[in-house]
Amino acid sequence: VNRGLRNEIERVIAAIAPQVVGDRRDFHRFAEVGWTEFRTASLVARRLTDLGLEVLAGRDACCEASRLGLPDEEVLEKHWFRAVQQGGDTQYLESMRGGFTGVIGRLGCGKPTIGLRFDMDALDLEESRSADHRPTQEGFASVNRQACHACGHDGHTAIGLGVARVLSGVGDALSGTVKFIFQPAEEGVRGARSIVEAGHLDDVDYLIGHHLITGWALGEVAPGMGGYAATRKFDVVFTGQAAHAGGAPEGGKNALLAAATAALHLHALPRHHDGFTRVNVGRLDAGTGRNVIPDRALLVCEVRGETTDLCESMYARAAHVVASAASLYGCSAALCPMGQAGTASSDTELADRARKTASDLGDGFRFYDVDRMGGSEDFTEMMARVQSRGGLATCIGIGADLHGIRKEDADRSRALPAHGDRFDFDERALFFAVRLLSCLSADLACPDFLPPTRD
Amino acid sequence: VNRGLRNEIERVIAAIAPQVVGDRRDFHRFAEVGWTEFRTASLVARRLTDLGLEVLAGRDACCEASRLGLPDEEVLEKHWFRAVQQGGDTQYLESMRGGFTGVIGRLGCGKPTIGLRFDMDALDLEESRSADHRPTQEGFASVNRQACHACGHDGHTAIGLGVARVLSGVGDALSGTVKFIFQPAEEGVRGARSIVEAGHLDDVDYLIGHHLITGWALGEVAPGMGGYAATRKFDVVFTGQAAHAGGAPEGGKNALLAAATAALHLHALPRHHDGFTRVNVGRLDAGTGRNVIPDRALLVCEVRGETTDLCESMYARAAHVVASAASLYGCSAALCPMGQAGTASSDTELADRARKTASDLGDGFRFYDVDRMGGSEDFTEMMARVQSRGGLATCIGIGADLHGIRKEDADRSRALPAHGDRFDFDERALFFAVRLLSCLSADLACPDFLPPTRD
Amino acid sequence: VNRGLRNEIERVIAAIAPQVVGDRRDFHRFAEVGWTEFRTASLVARRLTDLGLEVLAGRDACCEASRLGLPDEEVLEKHWFRAVQQGGDTQYLESMRGGFTGVIGRLGCGKPTIGLRFDMDALDLEESRSADHRPTQEGFASVNRQACHACGHDGHTAIGLGVARVLSGVGDALSGTVKFIFQPAEEGVRGARSIVEAGHLDDVDYLIGHHLITGWALGEVAPGMGGYAATRKFDVVFTGQAAHAGGAPEGGKNALLAAATAALHLHALPRHHDGFTRVNVGRLDAGTGRNVIPDRALLVCEVRGETTDLCESMYARAAHVVASAASLYGCSAALCPMGQAGTASSDTELADRARKTASDLGDGFRFYDVDRMGGSEDFTEMMARVQSRGGLATCIGIGADLHGIRKEDADRSRALPAHGDRFDFDERALFFAVRLLSCLSADLACPDFLPPTRD
Amino acid sequence: VNRGLRNEIERVIAAIAPQVVGDRRDFHRFAEVGWTEFRTASLVARRLTDLGLEVLAGRDACCEASRLGLPDEEVLEKHWFRAVQQGGDTQYLESMRGGFTGVIGRLGCGKPTIGLRFDMDALDLEESRSADHRPTQEGFASVNRQACHACGHDGHTAIGLGVARVLSGVGDALSGTVKFIFQPAEEGVRGARSIVEAGHLDDVDYLIGHHLITGWALGEVAPGMGGYAATRKFDVVFTGQAAHAGGAPEGGKNALLAAATAALHLHALPRHHDGFTRVNVGRLDAGTGRNVIPDRALLVCEVRGETTDLCESMYARAAHVVASAASLYGCSAALCPMGQAGTASSDTELADRARKTASDLGDGFRFYDVDRMGGSEDFTEMMARVQSRGGLATCIGIGADLHGIRKEDADRSRALPAHGDRFDFDERALFFAVRLLSCLSADLACPDFLPPTRD
Repeated sequence: VNRGLRNEIERVIAAIAPQVVGDRRDFHRFAEVGWTEFRTASLVARRLTDLGLEVLAGRDACCEASRLGLPDEEVLEKHWFRAVQQGGDTQYLESMRGGFTGVIGRLGCGKPTIGLRFDMDALDLEESRSADHRPTQEGFASVNRQACHACGHDGHTAIGLGVARVLSGVGDALSGTVKFIFQPAEEGVRGARSIVEAGHLDDVDYLIGHHLITGWALGEVAPGMGGYAATRKFDVVFTGQAAHAGGAPEGGKNALLAAATAALHLHALPRHHDGFTRVNVGRLDAGTGRNVIPDRALLVCEVRGETTDLCESMYARAAHVVASAASLYGCSAALCPMGQAGTASSDTELADRARKTASDLGDGFRFYDVDRMGGSEDFTEMMARVQSRGGLATCIGIGADLHGIRKEDADRSRALPAHGDRFDFDERALFFAVRLLSCLSADLACPDFLPPTRD
Repeated sequence: VNRGLRNEIERVIAAIAPQVVGDRRDFHRFAEVGWTEFRTASLVARRLTDLGLEVLAGRDACCEASRLGLPDEEVLEKHWFRAVQQGGDTQYLESMRGGFTGVIGRLGCGKPTIGLRFDMDALDLEESRSADHRPTQEGFASVNRQACHACGHDGHTAIGLGVARVLSGVGDALSGTVKFIFQPAEEGVRGARSIVEAGHLDDVDYLIGHHLITGWALGEVAPGMGGYAATRKFDVVFTGQAAHAGGAPEGGKNALLAAATAALHLHALPRHHDGFTRVNVGRLDAGTGRNVIPDRALLVCEVRGETTDLCESMYARAAHVVASAASLYGCSAALCPMGQAGTASSDTELADRARKTASDLGDGFRFYDVDRMGGSEDFTEMMARVQSRGGLATCIGIGADLHGIRKEDADRSRALPAHGDRFDFDERALFFAVRLLSCLSADLACPDFLPPTRD
Repeated sequence: VNRGLRNEIERVIAAIAPQVVGDRRDFHRFAEVGWTEFRTASLVARRLTDLGLEVLAGRDACCEASRLGLPDEEVLEKHWFRAVQQGGDTQYLESMRGGFTGVIGRLGCGKPTIGLRFDMDALDLEESRSADHRPTQEGFASVNRQACHACGHDGHTAIGLGVARVLSGVGDALSGTVKFIFQPAEEGVRGARSIVEAGHLDDVDYLIGHHLITGWALGEVAPGMGGYAATRKFDVVFTGQAAHAGGAPEGGKNALLAAATAALHLHALPRHHDGFTRVNVGRLDAGTGRNVIPDRALLVCEVRGETTDLCESMYARAAHVVASAASLYGCSAALCPMGQAGTASSDTELADRARKTASDLGDGFRFYDVDRMGGSEDFTEMMARVQSRGGLATCIGIGADLHGIRKEDADRSRALPAHGDRFDFDERALFFAVRLLSCLSADLACPDFLPPTRD
Repeated sequence: VNRGLRNEIERVIAAIAPQVVGDRRDFHRFAEVGWTEFRTASLVARRLTDLGLEVLAGRDACCEASRLGLPDEEVLEKHWFRAVQQGGDTQYLESMRGGFTGVIGRLGCGKPTIGLRFDMDALDLEESRSADHRPTQEGFASVNRQACHACGHDGHTAIGLGVARVLSGVGDALSGTVKFIFQPAEEGVRGARSIVEAGHLDDVDYLIGHHLITGWALGEVAPGMGGYAATRKFDVVFTGQAAHAGGAPEGGKNALLAAATAALHLHALPRHHDGFTRVNVGRLDAGTGRNVIPDRALLVCEVRGETTDLCESMYARAAHVVASAASLYGCSAALCPMGQAGTASSDTELADRARKTASDLGDGFRFYDVDRMGGSEDFTEMMARVQSRGGLATCIGIGADLHGIRKEDADRSRALPAHGDRFDFDERALFFAVRLLSCLSADLACPDFLPPTRD
């Protein structure tokens, strides 16, 4: 990227730095879990609009039928009203009602198209109130019950707004199009699919995701992460027939035993020669009264695979086990998909570009190759779509450890675990991320970087 | 019994009739479930005291260690405060705090000792608010959430107070002692044991229980019911070890699978040559998150047997299954007794006496022999104690159907089921019960009826 | 029956007594298990023919499609050749080849028709060679491997021939028809159905079965036994897919696990409110090599019920469990009926007649009512057919204990158990049985005993 | 190695070639399965002795207590007598009676010590009698039932004798010691341990194993194979209590259900984060009669792991599952180890030497690196012992495909599978193996190749 543009970027970043931290803390304070990010998403939409971007929200952002793991209508409504009370943007809130909390912002209209993805949802846990927890000390701990930004998505959202501020601030200097994708419900890998199915990835040439990582020190960067496990999340509801356990033991259809049987045989699904697989039944809730044959049971499950094929094979087998176990007790079983992500690898070409951009930002960075993430991430759904159409994609890991622990020295017992109630990160990582994503977008949009050939 | 005494009894009954109905409706309105009958029991104790009886309550009535299926401390406290607010007797409330809701009242001091048992607890369900439900129409439907007198214990308690009023009203005419036993937590067969273990049955010569039965028409009476199934109620908590299901599947100790295994093998406990047995796992709740190996599970269970021996054999086997299933997954299992009742038969001699007394009360009664109740009732625990010490016991069924359905013609689909949310009964049965129990007590206390020989 | 006829009967019995014992010992020595009674049945047919009876054998006696629990063709052939070598009647052997080992003999042609049933098969066990076992001592222990008359059917067969000798010996004195039914494969309740379905019970007015009982002393008689448990015997073959357990664990369809699952859930079939039920998986054989996923499994099962309805309900549920368990592992399951018997009660009218006949035979008999046999017996299939068409049926228990143990005093530990390898009985019971059945047949055939009205 | 020695070796090989093929076909014809290689081993011992080697056999070769998966005494005896009849060497047969079928031959007495291992056992299957099966055509198909050399061990044994002939033929030219280890019972990984525990590997500096591989063309060689899966083979016998399933269902302790439960939960053993694992229950045989509660059950099992630790972890968990499942049904369980092998890697230094030796033998060899064998092989037990004491070990794969299929082109459907009943190999591989092992031994024994330093 030319030096002039980069200087301009640096200038804007310096100006907006307080806003980035302010955004992060605001989103942190009003944490919202997946599909209920009404306040967050409406404010994102408002700000992108104010910055001059073309904004799509609500049903225009999310394909209704492809939203996975949606909460009950009642829960959605309750949280929507909460967002109204907590200062959500009333104009956009209306379109998001019912769980349409994605936002797409478009800046520019040339080629190539660079997609940047930011996830916005919090986790379903109670934030620590401990006096030595910085969000508590500094007054931005979550005020919402069972909602806590313990995975850094508050930062991701703030970074997204930051990049939008920077790139809209540098104005006409930018060729190409930058598409800002604010995604709901990444936790439980539920939200990406609805964005993908709405077609928002179909014209993206370069797709860039990122994740703040508290297990790595500030300055540690993995420009092209890969090796995510494919996963399917699903619930099963078994319906049988109640009967008095003493008076008519033969009269019932025992949904508890059907579910228990399913759980056992799900765990007995065979290993696979082609790679690792996983299965878990995380919850089983069945029955009502002690003397009543249970007529209802819920299983909360997931399967994983080293490849998407392995995962899909496990899912198909799991569905078969569930149906047969239900049949064993004369029950019916309804399987409900709750989340889905495949495997994906970052494209080396794009990762190398990100590495180069980062190197140009100054000294002091350490780069890593990370091709065995193990966990799951639904950004893979977006990557796969872009890659299937000839585009390039990468996912960048950005160290943000508050204690400066180096990746190599990571002492598991000391690191603040992602998903813990005392999660926090080093906010300096926000600025690095804004800078990197802004410069990388600018670089990619330059005519001298050739876009990949479409099929 | 001499005619003078009987006339006197009838006179008092006529005078107190409105109080009996009033009591029943008051208890109905402020329904309280097992071990939280704070308001009910305190008012019972107050009134018995006011009638001149010697009263034991709180820890004097209930053996602390023998209380089965006690709710959590928090629940007990919440309901205790509710009782304070709803007009419980403050003097007695204090002694009952923490779940000591039995009341023993003693009238007279001669021999023999006649024990009358009344159960006071409501069921854990929401009463119907339907406009054609009489308690709603007439303003005495339960105001307490998840508490409803759908088994007639409101009537039983009112009958107990009625008999106390009558017998204290006839004064010195009565020889012998009448012991009024107001029992908590009959539902789930949890409360009798604590009264028995406190020793209150040890000096009883004649023990009389009764139950209003809505499946039988008014005037239908079974003077000596028997054939109750023995039962044991118990909960099991499995404790394992959580682990991330994707990252460390080998690290967990799966309490969900341990509980599921236990459930299956409990249901596979073999049948018994000596008579019928039953087993049920009414609830299984296990696990937390979808991707976490569950470290905790709860089973809510019961076993039954045609005899106490069969039931105890099932219970011992169930305990073994639970322990082995826990071991299979490296978990621990804690089994908690939640209720217990044995089999018992009414003594023919005493039942015949009850039949004769009922016959003397007038025409229009139809008597039945009922020796296969099938269900369970913890009055059997009291009967067994009295019988083991040489006393006689009987349990009297009293028809109270609101629609006058005859036992023979009972159309199951029309009858108001016990334990349903629209349960109600014919209040005229209250007067019959007060009259029968008063006269029978008087009869038994007469010198011309010989007490049984003690061992 | 008139005295002349009875005297004649007694005379003939005295003459044939050695033949009865001889027959019994011959059948005992050449014991043959169910559906392979080639030698026994062919000799029975030969002797009945020689006595002048009209004889049906082979496919005329047994309905081919209704033969349950038939051995493999190879086994049938092997035992057929053995029968040839051991002196079976060559004329009849030919018709019986392939497992058609029933024999029907008809004596007389008038009305009413009296059916007498005798079962011929031995048990699948090795007879004791102990020196103090009488059959060994006296040289009539079984020479056939895994075939031993340990249930007295050798005696039953000899009794049948004895009665045929007696009644054919008294000649024209007998009015009515006596039908001798020699049944194969009573063990495992497999053979009666094929006789019933061939129509041989359809014209029977009075049906009489009997069983020698070693648990009762000589002289103890139950003229009308009842309360047999209904039962269904069945095998299940599961077929899956083999795969190398190390190299392709996902490639198999595990028939062993399907069968194991079926076994567990069969045992977990719920108890029934209407009466006792039973279920057992007596054998499970699955798999081949240690490192191969098993592609085949066999279950050997039975269910029982206090009534035929309960038994059929268990059978239907068992079939459902088997199919669902197979499905759970992607296997197929083939269920093969191997035996069947219902409940039946002896008709009091006919039992009373038998009692009277027995009483007339002399003093020293003790009569018992036995209405809870508990075990199963496929004579019930014949009884049900006769009763369903308006006839009367009874099953007579005849004490035959070698040690003279009285029923009341029966010391379980001393009695020679039926089905044990040292089984033997008091041969004097044979004469009593021949006398009783001959006289009872004669009595029933008399014009002065009115036959029941057909529908 | 010096050219003179090599020429000498080639000369001897040319002379003994017919004997090598003759030996192979003789051992093939009289195939003997694991622990019954009486004829084979006695002839091996005889010939080594005749060649002048110092020979250990019987209990001197095998540690009695460490023999895994030994057949029943009766089977051992039967096969021992067969070996007598089939021309086994009577002198050595005596010492081998009872299953001591290892042979150790020592040639020379200097340093270093080179160990060569040869396995001798056949597989438990029936050889094909097809007319186009070469062993049938040429008259050396197995004459023993259920014993077939379908894994090439006949060749391995012949190679061992060939190398002994060669090296004893070159006489004093050889410095160092060559130890010939003829091992029983490699199939099922049962025999190596008894050789190791007898101490025969403790003084070995270089250990060389080899395997003919029919999936590779002649000339294809892997000089250092690795990546074997660790495995444990074990049987479990469950013992319960029989009872009549109809008359006393509560009286039994159901070994069938215990075994079925164990099978299910063994397959539900969790996957492991550290690498692949496997588990299989290859057979389950339980019960006797249809109406008897089974009192005995057998499970035939194996577990595997990518590492020895993973395998041992699975084994420990399996033992726990088995014990708990037995407890669930009140049964006892006896676990019997039947085979064991760990993981091991060939030492690169030694493999490289083997590669060089092979290269020197002429052109036309293709070399492969094979570090993911996947299957199991108990030579690993010997390798581990040698490596743990500072020695070097390698396992050499030698292509022997009869059809000349190249490894790269291997068409799975055409290749003759190891362990199939039509297995055969290209006998020219025998000569290559004799030549390679002879020269490699000579090379290693040279003073110019430094032995590894012992700890």
